[in-house]
Amino acid sequence: MYRSHTCGELRIKNVQETVILAGWVQTIRKFGSITFIDLRDRYGVTQLLFGEELNKQLDENPLGREYVLQVKGIVTERSNKNKNIATGDIEITVNELSILNKSAIPPFTISDETDGGDDVRMKYRYLDLRRNAVKKNLELRYAVSRSTRNYLHENNFMDIETPFLIKSTPEGARDFVVPSRMNPGQFYALPQSPQTFKQLLMVSGYDRYYQIVKCFRDEDLRADRQPEFTQIDCEMSFVEQEDILNMFEGLVKRIFKDVKNIDYTDTVERMTWEDAMWNFGNDKPDIRFGMQLLNIKKPASVYINKKDQPELVSGADFKVFDEAETVIAIAVPGCSEYSRKQTDEITEWVKRPQIGMKGLVFIKCNLDGTFKSSVDKFYSEEKLKAIATAANAKTGDLILILAGAEERTRKASSELRLEMGKRLGYRKDDEFKLLWVLDFPLFEYAEEENRWVARHHPFTSPKPSDIDTMINNSPVITDASKYLEHPYANIKANAYDMVLNGNEIGGGSIRIFQRPLQEKMFEALGMDEAEQQHKFGFLLGAFEYGAPPHGGLAFGFDRLCAIIGGSESIRDFIAFPKNNSGRDVMLDAPSTIDAKQFDELQIKLDLK
Amino acid sequence: MYRSHTCGELRIKNVQETVILAGWVQTIRKFGSITFIDLRDRYGVTQLLFGEELNKQLDENPLGREYVLQVKGIVTERSNKNKNIATGDIEITVNELSILNKSAIPPFTISDETDGGDDVRMKYRYLDLRRNAVKKNLELRYAVSRSTRNYLHENNFMDIETPFLIKSTPEGARDFVVPSRMNPGQFYALPQSPQTFKQLLMVSGYDRYYQIVKCFRDEDLRADRQPEFTQIDCEMSFVEQEDILNMFEGLVKRIFKDVKNIDYTDTVERMTWEDAMWNFGNDKPDIRFGMQLLNIKKPASVYINKKDQPELVSGADFKVFDEAETVIAIAVPGCSEYSRKQTDEITEWVKRPQIGMKGLVFIKCNLDGTFKSSVDKFYSEEKLKAIATAANAKTGDLILILAGAEERTRKASSELRLEMGKRLGYRKDDEFKLLWVLDFPLFEYAEEENRWVARHHPFTSPKPSDIDTMINNSPVITDASKYLEHPYANIKANAYDMVLNGNEIGGGSIRIFQRPLQEKMFEALGMDEAEQQHKFGFLLGAFEYGAPPHGGLAFGFDRLCAIIGGSESIRDFIAFPKNNSGRDVMLDAPSTIDAKQFDELQIKLDLK
Repeated sequence: MYRSHTCGELRIKNVQETVILAGWVQTIRKFGSITFIDLRDRYGVTQLLFGEELNKQLDENPLGREYVLQVKGIVTERSNKNKNIATGDIEITVNELSILNKSAIPPFTISDETDGGDDVRMKYRYLDLRRNAVKKNLELRYAVSRSTRNYLHENNFMDIETPFLIKSTPEGARDFVVPSRMNPGQFYALPQSPQTFKQLLMVSGYDRYYQIVKCFRDEDLRADRQPEFTQIDCEMSFVEQEDILNMFEGLVKRIFKDVKNIDYTDTVERMTWEDAMWNFGNDKPDIRFGMQLLNIKKPASVYINKKDQPELVSGADFKVFDEAETVIAIAVPGCSEYSRKQTDEITEWVKRPQIGMKGLVFIKCNLDGTFKSSVDKFYSEEKLKAIATAANAKTGDLILILAGAEERTRKASSELRLEMGKRLGYRKDDEFKLLWVLDFPLFEYAEEENRWVARHHPFTSPKPSDIDTMINNSPVITDASKYLEHPYANIKANAYDMVLNGNEIGGGSIRIFQRPLQEKMFEALGMDEAEQQHKFGFLLGAFEYGAPPHGGLAFGFDRLCAIIGGSESIRDFIAFPKNNSGRDVMLDAPSTIDAKQFDELQIKLDLK
Repeated sequence: MYRSHTCGELRIKNVQETVILAGWVQTIRKFGSITFIDLRDRYGVTQLLFGEELNKQLDENPLGREYVLQVKGIVTERSNKNKNIATGDIEITVNELSILNKSAIPPFTISDETDGGDDVRMKYRYLDLRRNAVKKNLELRYAVSRSTRNYLHENNFMDIETPFLIKSTPEGARDFVVPSRMNPGQFYALPQSPQTFKQLLMVSGYDRYYQIVKCFRDEDLRADRQPEFTQIDCEMSFVEQEDILNMFEGLVKRIFKDVKNIDYTDTVERMTWEDAMWNFGNDKPDIRFGMQLLNIKKPASVYINKKDQPELVSGADFKVFDEAETVIAIAVPGCSEYSRKQTDEITEWVKRPQIGMKGLVFIKCNLDGTFKSSVDKFYSEEKLKAIATAANAKTGDLILILAGAEERTRKASSELRLEMGKRLGYRKDDEFKLLWVLDFPLFEYAEEENRWVARHHPFTSPKPSDIDTMINNSPVITDASKYLEHPYANIKANAYDMVLNGNEIGGGSIRIFQRPLQEKMFEALGMDEAEQQHKFGFLLGAFEYGAPPHGGLAFGFDRLCAIIGGSESIRDFIAFPKNNSGRDVMLDAPSTIDAKQFDELQIKLDLK
């Protein structure tokens, strides 16, 4: 061993001990004939003191930042203690120095506040990983995985590895494929998730399975997506939805406790998908704050339980509202005194292409009890007051109103709510609010193909009360314009998403476990019998031999870590992430392969 | 929850309780108007008693094997207790029955002794996994992984995930490659191991890393190989070989304790590679028994420390021995009275193509103190006695002697030793003997290309005492016939293998951590500067910025589990293994992909 202690270990009680440390030069400070060096390793920083004699050696062979040193010396009490670091009471009076390795000058400063841009830090990721900020993220990631494994183990879950070289069954996302040399002309696929395998394990009787496992999706990447990502993947047999919700909110609470020392004692809230969409404009509401959406015009919509909504704005000759499919109001607390400049800025914000609205109407609920709006000529003060009351607005609030086509307006309202919540400081990194979103629609309508697609995936069961509807009706949509009236449009899924601070961190469902219903589902998704057999024959086969009722869920592990770590970017929590083109710029991968490889795989390029 | 208890849980203390169980029908036994059913789940088997009333229901809707049932009933003490199962004191008097799912008749019997052949069990792997024998293997696998994680965690190791979509740098084994849609014409490779990433993590300062991780090698498969396999992958900084040996023999001892409740208190033996080859004929000796090889003729060989070996057989006019490069004797205890038929059978055994020897000479050390051999006309009794003494043979032993070319003879002697050890019952599944094999040669000679290849891998450091030899000599072999005299032939690696019962379960090395030595290594392996930069530029770059001394090892997790489980076959310890053609016969993968996939990936087939 090159060291007797780590750089984070020595305390005042070790004074007088002879120790050996090894680590990296963080800083060098020369004061006349003595030199102080901060030596860093994974565990901390320890100050080294080089006296006159060794100082001469340093003059002849100067050290630099990031040099790797081994030093032997005596632990000494510091006269000038540093309260900011755990080893701050002591320093090492060095009497032997060995340079284990030199370092070129790093391309950026290795410190919390670095001068390195994204690109250079990705290229030299091995140096970026030295920064304390990044190290803390990976430590948090490990702590989350450790906590997860312990909780699941204590609850009788078994970690069972599923294969990575599987069969390509593209459904939704694209597969990455792997040419098989031993089976020329054939390809493996990398798993988008171990979904069918975990279901087979349930058929096999392993009633509580888990895995922390890499998954792969060949999709065009957004800033917070990676072609390879990690899931906490779980499945249970002989359970109903309620059992799964309890088990996995328990898991997340345990992680909060183990990793952040937070006692999450609140009941985890539950919300139907309809309520989430209706009141928050999206299916993963951030419930750290209120400011719910008020639907002030009844939209023709998929929200079947919202048909008796009050109608507050039509018929006042205000064309924008009269012609809009949807009108949504948000009461923003304490902002009634916003200046013209401020309301203009918000108007510009909603007109940005990413939001895509044509404008913004506002009502100020003045502190003197009066109301002032940008549409005063259409609406009486009484009418404005009625809207304000319905929107739960208080004196001093500013009501923002968006109007337009249903889908766009709802999405924009959601974005506006989140934006205002952020501006007002309602979205705190260190406050955590969990939420289950339930009762999703089982199907979504795919306009191009005039057919149904699975909202979650093809293995999700309908609600028990909707099974007959599904079995007894044809999935064929005869009149595309009336797809909303098709019985399948209202089938709810036995599915659930876990939402943390406005991010979907996990989701799952109770699965179909009977062959006839699974076949009906495949049929609904446009798969004929031959295709069903080719792609999922093994699963249909397995359902013949005593499949138990089962269900499960998967957490997006990268995102879960990021949110617990108070970050929006999953990349900060991955040791070696790829960029938005799916490249590893450090490795320079992907890259060309050589002729022998093409030859052995019996494939060739076919570049457009 | 569909159950109040599992099928392995109820005991005599639960008598009178009303319980709900769910599980699979294992057996059905009808006795007149009552029926007994054994209900099985992951946790055990519980006997169900169906009385007269429910029996009628069963007559109308008969149950079958592997049906999934939910029953409600009362725990009752059994009159006829079954001592073989944990729930054998009780049964459930059923009063409500619900069939959760039916089952077709399984294609083979789901019991420890199954009637299913390999092929059908692979196709219906989800049913094979129900068998207790297979379940125990997966449970053992999970226990080994759990024990590993706990030990490494307690020793400050961090689990850090490394990427799966990396760069193809074929060295030795073939890479599986993955076409990149977003970077047309370019490919990712799947990792053969996280080797370079764990080294980068050491450069980054994460001084104790581990991962239980899938690795991929596109090689022609032998019975005990899989295209995807799992490693326990570890790396440490600021350590020497001794530190690593101590840490990881500690890990294996911990696994023995946690998983098998074995206190492995023996010192783990250590052996140089030369001694292993010399005395056992291979580099992974099974030391559960003796029967070491005796080299009775001095071979011209790579074993540089064995040059003063005694010469016992030359010059007696026995051409076979005189002309042989190598002659090796093995004393087999207590077999001097083998019949002619028995010795003939062993002779036939060594003549099999897999062993490939031309014949076998034997010396019987008779119980009366005389010696009798198949070569009596060449060797006096005195000479035979000298050989017997040198071979450590005792009265009653049978000495087997093989002669021929060095490599083949040594290998055959090793196989013969193992075979005789097995026949004599010296190789017990439940006895475990660990061994470190040390001081491997750094290089192997590749005849076809007349150059050096890395025996372990290109990142392994030479012994400190051999570094100068490596740096100061050209790797070029000017005279192929004299490659053994090249200074590189005698360079030893700072590498180690852990051997358990004659199987290599893990191996590793102290790594090169200085750029000039790494460049010299690449050069020795025939890589010019451009190739070095293309393939490993990131690693050479990393070594510029303060790489610490480091080393590590990897365990073959599948094999480790198999051996601890007392099996030779890793496939028995993998949930969803592939066959010898790399096929998953359950999924029917690999398979064709569709035209759209080829189109998007911009590749096409080029079948020969």
